[in-house]
Amino acid sequence: MDQARRAFLMNDFRQAFTAHLGFEALDAAEGHFASTVALTPALLQQDGLAHAGVVATLADHTAGYAAYTLVGPESRILTVEFKINFLKPAAGAALYCQAQVISRGRTILPAESAVWAVNADGDRKLAAKAMVTLMVVPTESLRRES
Amino acid sequence: MDQARRAFLMNDFRQAFTAHLGFEALDAAEGHFASTVALTPALLQQDGLAHAGVVATLADHTAGYAAYTLVGPESRILTVEFKINFLKPAAGAALYCQAQVISRGRTILPAESAVWAVNADGDRKLAAKAMVTLMVVPTESLRRES
Amino acid sequence: MDQARRAFLMNDFRQAFTAHLGFEALDAAEGHFASTVALTPALLQQDGLAHAGVVATLADHTAGYAAYTLVGPESRILTVEFKINFLKPAAGAALYCQAQVISRGRTILPAESAVWAVNADGDRKLAAKAMVTLMVVPTESLRRES
Amino acid sequence: MDQARRAFLMNDFRQAFTAHLGFEALDAAEGHFASTVALTPALLQQDGLAHAGVVATLADHTAGYAAYTLVGPESRILTVEFKINFLKPAAGAALYCQAQVISRGRTILPAESAVWAVNADGDRKLAAKAMVTLMVVPTESLRRES
Repeated sequence: MDQARRAFLMNDFRQAFTAHLGFEALDAAEGHFASTVALTPALLQQDGLAHAGVVATLADHTAGYAAYTLVGPESRILTVEFKINFLKPAAGAALYCQAQVISRGRTILPAESAVWAVNADGDRKLAAKAMVTLMVVPTESLRRES
Repeated sequence: MDQARRAFLMNDFRQAFTAHLGFEALDAAEGHFASTVALTPALLQQDGLAHAGVVATLADHTAGYAAYTLVGPESRILTVEFKINFLKPAAGAALYCQAQVISRGRTILPAESAVWAVNADGDRKLAAKAMVTLMVVPTESLRRES
Repeated sequence: MDQARRAFLMNDFRQAFTAHLGFEALDAAEGHFASTVALTPALLQQDGLAHAGVVATLADHTAGYAAYTLVGPESRILTVEFKINFLKPAAGAALYCQAQVISRGRTILPAESAVWAVNADGDRKLAAKAMVTLMVVPTESLRRES
Repeated sequence: MDQARRAFLMNDFRQAFTAHLGFEALDAAEGHFASTVALTPALLQQDGLAHAGVVATLADHTAGYAAYTLVGPESRILTVEFKINFLKPAAGAALYCQAQVISRGRTILPAESAVWAVNADGDRKLAAKAMVTLMVVPTESLRRES
């Protein structure tokens, strides 16, 4: 992955829904991606924890970009399915996520994501783990469908 | 479930993160819940579809409230884990979700959610299906932890 | 699906591992498959219930053949992943499984399976539900790999 | 975990269905378990690979015993649900599995399993990864139900 592609993906990560939530890309390498989001009141549930949907969205989106680092502009990444286990209450100032592709098929790229709750001192506690099944599709096919 | 409890759950469904996204409860019955969300630009991804995170959040949250209809104020519902398959691109004016608890254990309440994309004419297309594992916890235990 | 293809799939369902466990095909139609297995002592766990692995194998294998009904001899079906929830103890004389494909993509065929425990009187109790993600691959590609 | 408990679990691992398949415990430590199974013809599918059901059963059963190491004789472990991704064809002489509990709740013990295909030279190739949600139940409650 060259620097221009890396910069493109780091920027592309935050747009539309994920910009609305305040997601930020932290790092990208071949098959790997890291991200964070500040836990503003709008992202919480009734007990003051990050809503499970925020945790799941971060896990899915970061896994998708981990897969995105393995393909060129002629391909796009779709989420086929994902599964997430919530391990500990996601309380804190921010969430931090790391994702990595764990097998490189031609069509299917399974990736694992881990999400940590980060407190004001920067201490991390593992909050959730996800397995995300991603599929490589030709960019052209998406254009034809829309 | 009496009418006061039903009204409480219908209202409680929309708060914090889910109010921020514009979720609305449509119906509640014992073991069942239905909901919707208008697909404003903030909820989309780069191709103009609902972001997978929005679809997953609606599926999880609605399943949680389907479980919530089966317990009293002394209990709360936590999501242990969920898995969601994305079946068709979620394009349209709104999402519609139905969830139902499929087995009534003392502690574990598994629920299924289906999410449809709804176009401007009200036509629905099945976009995703999720299985959500929910756990009943004493309200008191949550207060002690926080 | 013509009768010859249907007969081929009904017979093909039971071979190697699944023959060893005593699986039997009961019915096949486009996108649908049904199967059963008698709960002999070798298939149980320590409490006299069907082992979770038997239930999961039946759910996965039957879903795979539901997908198989939608392709011709030039294609094969691989399981990408599956997720299964165990709802009730699988006690009884036999298991019965129904599976159906819930979305027809070109490459990905997600299918749902339900497994019932059947007692000596033929009464059924829902024991497990699974979501199985299946992929269509060219038969030729499997031959090249082996 | 004392040596008597460890020996009990290593022996208990192989019984009924898992003895029938030839599963063997290799190692047990607090929150961890390792196992193997020789790939005899009865465990294969039509292409000479380990059947997905064998891989899934090994992943689930080994995760269950990883959880089992964390409780005493007054408790039993039930599988609530699991999800498994198949990464590479499971071809070879044997399967090898490692599982570990990744969060220690009072009731819920999520565990991860990895399954490798092992060839005749002992080389390992990662074939599958699973997330298994396990629940602690009182031994007494199982007796009452049966």
